[in-house]
Amino acid sequence: MSTPEIDARSAPGFNPGLSMARWLLPPVLSSSIDSLGGQLSQICGYQLGMYDVDGHKTGRVAGKLIRPAFTLLCTQAVGGRPEDALPASAAIELLHNASLIHDDIMDGDQERRHRPTVWAKFGEPMAILAGDALIALGFEAIAGYQHPAAARSTAVLAATLRKLAVGQELDLRFESEATVSVDECLAMMGGKTGVLLGCSCRLGSAYASAPAEWSVRFERFGYHLGIAFQLVDDLLGIWGDPHVTGKPVGSDLHARKKSAPVVAALATTTTGAHWIAARYASPDPLTGDEVTELADAIDEAGGRAWTRVEADRQISIAWDLIDGLDLDQSARSHLASLTTTLMKRES
Amino acid sequence: MSTPEIDARSAPGFNPGLSMARWLLPPVLSSSIDSLGGQLSQICGYQLGMYDVDGHKTGRVAGKLIRPAFTLLCTQAVGGRPEDALPASAAIELLHNASLIHDDIMDGDQERRHRPTVWAKFGEPMAILAGDALIALGFEAIAGYQHPAAARSTAVLAATLRKLAVGQELDLRFESEATVSVDECLAMMGGKTGVLLGCSCRLGSAYASAPAEWSVRFERFGYHLGIAFQLVDDLLGIWGDPHVTGKPVGSDLHARKKSAPVVAALATTTTGAHWIAARYASPDPLTGDEVTELADAIDEAGGRAWTRVEADRQISIAWDLIDGLDLDQSARSHLASLTTTLMKRES
Repeated sequence: MSTPEIDARSAPGFNPGLSMARWLLPPVLSSSIDSLGGQLSQICGYQLGMYDVDGHKTGRVAGKLIRPAFTLLCTQAVGGRPEDALPASAAIELLHNASLIHDDIMDGDQERRHRPTVWAKFGEPMAILAGDALIALGFEAIAGYQHPAAARSTAVLAATLRKLAVGQELDLRFESEATVSVDECLAMMGGKTGVLLGCSCRLGSAYASAPAEWSVRFERFGYHLGIAFQLVDDLLGIWGDPHVTGKPVGSDLHARKKSAPVVAALATTTTGAHWIAARYASPDPLTGDEVTELADAIDEAGGRAWTRVEADRQISIAWDLIDGLDLDQSARSHLASLTTTLMKRES
Repeated sequence: MSTPEIDARSAPGFNPGLSMARWLLPPVLSSSIDSLGGQLSQICGYQLGMYDVDGHKTGRVAGKLIRPAFTLLCTQAVGGRPEDALPASAAIELLHNASLIHDDIMDGDQERRHRPTVWAKFGEPMAILAGDALIALGFEAIAGYQHPAAARSTAVLAATLRKLAVGQELDLRFESEATVSVDECLAMMGGKTGVLLGCSCRLGSAYASAPAEWSVRFERFGYHLGIAFQLVDDLLGIWGDPHVTGKPVGSDLHARKKSAPVVAALATTTTGAHWIAARYASPDPLTGDEVTELADAIDEAGGRAWTRVEADRQISIAWDLIDGLDLDQSARSHLASLTTTLMKRES
């Protein structure tokens, strides 16, 4: 799969977590990126939307900042101050963008956020470097703010970077494998999307000085939410409304991505599964009609329903992990509403 | 320039710093790499020489471990225990290998240590990932060992990664620029080779609980040594004995690298400078005779002598920085002999 971005720009409703992230993060991210100087600053700034395609400053940061929003809300939920978690939330956003840049090279993706990807615009060498620079800035963000949670958080951030690499390795391997099991698919989603949101939530709780046992729960909370959001993303990649997503109907099928609904359908013993497998094995480009047929076959084989149920199941697992904790009720409700917004999104 | 490796395998004489690094580091590096699992473990292990080209375990680590040797010796010089600096020295070696893997992709280099480079053997996507994984392991190594120096050292390691990216950016830019000044060339060498050896020496002193002012001196000590070693590398790249270096005569000239002797020769007002510039501007491959002529012209224009003198000057600057400090004399003499070995090396 392409490395996903949870797109909440068009999400209905107001969420205090997102607003907080979009208010607090941009100055921190900008000054971090500016510290690079030279062309690297421009390239990394382009990735974060601080520069447009013509190299002009936009005066803003374009990312949706979902992950920092979770970090800041988790801090509040545990009774901490969002300012304390600000460097950590910036670190996660920087690391996220580093992995987007590198994954776009590996996946050969030419477009992101309706603009050329970094490698497509600046070439592969500069894209590799820009990713490395963003990783460096991420660790500098955490290390540059003295806090009792900093040492442990550095270890968590480093482990997250390692797990992201392992998740992307799984993803690359799956592209060339004939069959992928549902468990492997979930593990890969966990490695790519779950791990980073898990880190976001864990660091949020850590900077509120939560006990270690709570932080581990918050990490698993974010991990399962991340998988759920990715499952929704996979549904939109096949059945999303092209007018809302801005992508062609069944875009993931055109690219023959082994997304969750496809893997689930292929795992059944239905006759449809054989037909879908044959379509996926053929090297010929799919016509629009064939994509529609394929989407219907996946639906009939149960791939769509399984994915929806699994997404809800992951959400339940996530909340069960932190429901017994004595949390700030206001922040908890903001976490819940942000979760709902992302689960119900249409793009 | 290609990212250099200081090759001391064939260095004459015994150095306790190198022996210590080669005794202590391999188990730490192996267990770090093994923690990745899967193919990433094999690829990163291949880079470090733990696996051969056929994927078999070699039972050793092939790196020369120059940088960790400096870390451990600097710790001893300040009166600390090498064991305390071991995770930090492993972190530097991991980061070094990450940058080698990524730089080899950017530079299109197909061979390193007489074997295919990681991207040439495993493809670019896996090479990008392997580099990211090694960066992660580097930060995990430091963060996983509780020590008063850990927090500050994480910040130093992150800043080093950032500066390496900036140095490599300069290097990539120089390849397409017609003229590069001597100062720009030294800055680029500083960014690529100086910064990492500076980090090695700084972390060494930090893990011996040196005062902050000493650590900054050790960082600059390593920085200038790194530039000196790179200057020697540049001399060998033109005038090295092919029987000893294992590379063709004037290999850097064949590749039209803007190495220090070339840049210094071009900066003169000699008639030779114009002739060299014209040869470098021509797109035609150079014959063996032309390379010999070019090497002679660079020598006559003073490029060779300047580089030798500059290397010695950098060494002087380095030692002046720490000579006034009250250091362990045995470790200090090992540092000095390692420096001499590297300055006199022939490959």
